[in-house]
Amino acid sequence: MFENDDGFLKAYLEDRQKIVEEALQHYLPADDIPPKIYEAVRYSVFNGGKRIRPILCMAAAEAVGGDLASAMPVACALELIHTYSLIHDDLPAMDDDDFRRGKSTCHKVFGEDIAILAGDALLTEAFVLLSRAEKVRLSGFSAERRLAIIQEISYAAGIGGMVGGQALDVLSGNSGADENTLREIHRRKTGALIVAAVKSGAFIFNAGKDKIQALAEYGINLGLAFQIADDILNVEGDRELMGKETGSDAARNKLTYPSLLGMELAKEKLARYIDAAVASLAGFDERAMPLVVIARYIMERKS
Amino acid sequence: MFENDDGFLKAYLEDRQKIVEEALQHYLPADDIPPKIYEAVRYSVFNGGKRIRPILCMAAAEAVGGDLASAMPVACALELIHTYSLIHDDLPAMDDDDFRRGKSTCHKVFGEDIAILAGDALLTEAFVLLSRAEKVRLSGFSAERRLAIIQEISYAAGIGGMVGGQALDVLSGNSGADENTLREIHRRKTGALIVAAVKSGAFIFNAGKDKIQALAEYGINLGLAFQIADDILNVEGDRELMGKETGSDAARNKLTYPSLLGMELAKEKLARYIDAAVASLAGFDERAMPLVVIARYIMERKS
Repeated sequence: MFENDDGFLKAYLEDRQKIVEEALQHYLPADDIPPKIYEAVRYSVFNGGKRIRPILCMAAAEAVGGDLASAMPVACALELIHTYSLIHDDLPAMDDDDFRRGKSTCHKVFGEDIAILAGDALLTEAFVLLSRAEKVRLSGFSAERRLAIIQEISYAAGIGGMVGGQALDVLSGNSGADENTLREIHRRKTGALIVAAVKSGAFIFNAGKDKIQALAEYGINLGLAFQIADDILNVEGDRELMGKETGSDAARNKLTYPSLLGMELAKEKLARYIDAAVASLAGFDERAMPLVVIARYIMERKS
Repeated sequence: MFENDDGFLKAYLEDRQKIVEEALQHYLPADDIPPKIYEAVRYSVFNGGKRIRPILCMAAAEAVGGDLASAMPVACALELIHTYSLIHDDLPAMDDDDFRRGKSTCHKVFGEDIAILAGDALLTEAFVLLSRAEKVRLSGFSAERRLAIIQEISYAAGIGGMVGGQALDVLSGNSGADENTLREIHRRKTGALIVAAVKSGAFIFNAGKDKIQALAEYGINLGLAFQIADDILNVEGDRELMGKETGSDAARNKLTYPSLLGMELAKEKLARYIDAAVASLAGFDERAMPLVVIARYIMERKS
């Protein structure tokens, strides 16, 4: 069933991206928002992102027998949090990036003050979206389940997860770090929200503990693979496809898998994490196929 | 009952501040947090703040017959959100403040990157705190009630509230603004979280709609009074007591109540909002006394 899935993958991702774009249009606040923040938020959210986190959330929901529509608010909240993290990461005081996906970064267009506020706004609106029953289809789910999702996502975005990982990254420099440090940075910085994406997709439909545990394993491995693939693309990627300069990590002397292990070993690690992600899905039926295909896509992506 | 309450006020505020400090020590994440973020977060949270929002939350809880201990996680989450907003507001790209309460601001001590992340972390940890039952005493309350509190607080902190107000403030400049604009900025920037503080305190104990509505009125008026008092202190305050330079608003040509209306009228407005706040408590019994006393304190505070 997993052979010759290139055509399936392309159609699947395009379809899912379209669904996410439409849902984001629907869920993003449009009332009562100062025009420049509105512009900055929309500029950053609708910039051609791959929507990996929402797509993973939906795929996990389907893998446990859920429907797409019910997963949408959670999927979109994840994308709002991801977008906030990119806006803040790009700031001059952080990575100081001028371009993302071929377009000027938020602070280059709107100024640093608006970019900081747009990021703050997106993070906060994610929790508005997750908690406001009347606006979203989650109203059909119990308050307990929605609270569990907020728990999972806030923890993953916070000090134990994404923010903590970003802080470790900022503080790590390149001196004396080893693979354990690097893995810990990426487990938190990239991995935690990916784990939250698949787990919360499964939470919505009250999946059993074994399924949730398997999805967490999948997410942990996929998150690490995702970061290694990113590091590799930063060295070998096509500038045109990436929409940004390659080689920036090396220029910054940034700690990456290729710089630490060498390119060959980094590619081996990537393949190994992808295999582990796929293996963790052994207990699922064919409804988990998209999760398998996404894992393969992470390994082979060009941008 | 409200005469000669200076002694009561002092003892009450000191007692409540102590309770909040201890609770914050308990609730702030200590595990798994990069040391420099830990320091930056604690530096900013424990910097001698007046803890007005948590104290209001507790006072509202008591006014509707609730107990203090149960209100603590919510009270502390409000203070984490308030602290994040101060860290980000002080950044060079925003208000560019070097001092707060007599101490160097977070970014002056830890750098801009860590200050941005510390703010992001505090905002996120507020939602971790509000949603994680096992850690906090809120576990005794229904998931519905906790979800309602997250709704209220996330909305107040977001685009419809604090972040939106800060954006309006950043964008307003001083040109052609009128009192309606100024009120709208402060209703959101300062007022929304104060309203959320009293409402969520009452939510915990399932207060009736009329009580919640009255507390919202109190909060709206108190929030505006709070901001006018701040503006007045920025002109007339004692530099020593304030722990920062006075006159900074005027130097920045910032839109304030005294600059817009003149000092005399600004003081009249302040008194009128305080009266309105107190009047909205007419339907409460003596358990609302602290809310009355806090309103008087807001008018008369010196720092």
